[in-house]
Amino acid sequence: MAKLSDKTEHQFRSGCSISRTLEIVGDKWTLLIIRDLMWHDKHTFKDLQDSAEHMPANILTTRLNRLMEWGLIYRTPYQDKPVRYTYHLTEAGLKTETVLLQIMQWGHENLGGGKYNPETRQSLSAN
Amino acid sequence: MAKLSDKTEHQFRSGCSISRTLEIVGDKWTLLIIRDLMWHDKHTFKDLQDSAEHMPANILTTRLNRLMEWGLIYRTPYQDKPVRYTYHLTEAGLKTETVLLQIMQWGHENLGGGKYNPETRQSLSAN
Repeated sequence: MAKLSDKTEHQFRSGCSISRTLEIVGDKWTLLIIRDLMWHDKHTFKDLQDSAEHMPANILTTRLNRLMEWGLIYRTPYQDKPVRYTYHLTEAGLKTETVLLQIMQWGHENLGGGKYNPETRQSLSAN
Repeated sequence: MAKLSDKTEHQFRSGCSISRTLEIVGDKWTLLIIRDLMWHDKHTFKDLQDSAEHMPANILTTRLNRLMEWGLIYRTPYQDKPVRYTYHLTEAGLKTETVLLQIMQWGHENLGGGKYNPETRQSLSAN
């Protein structure tokens, strides 16, 4: 039984909190969208598409929709004709920051990736 | 440039530590294998297959192979004819524990999933 609002009928694969979380963010892309919304001031579809990993548009669309359905992000229109939106993290979405930080730390120590400090907004480059 | 031994030629999508980590564990299953090896004394192919999420055998095979290639797990034969293996986490694999703990915490708070305490080896059931 999900606590997040509009998915209360969803049947999870198991009662494991890790398994449940991976049903939402367990892929190569979703946590990168959250990273960009959380730390890098990227809030439009185009901003998100322009990240270094070059997320394909169809993948970005499905992932944004899934995050909205689960209540991790919300969107607000910023123009009409055609309507375009900015995307922001909800409170539940913002709470994934500790997950991002731990994944970043592991990748920094074991795969030579860069390291971002959210407090100073400074990055150490990758090896 | 990977620090883990036999993947030094791998071209990552970007220098981001999160993106690099997700190239290895960014799917619905891999962190569940790590969970079972880390906390639940599941070390054979059959043990891992029998978990509550019922991982398909072909997916389990590809994920175990990827984790071995990247040096997060290693295997040891425990019988001949047919040869069968037990799987264990390496030092780099064991260091993902903090990632698992944060993902579990988020899923417990936001999706009503269970919570495991590695120190007491006790679980709180899912809602």
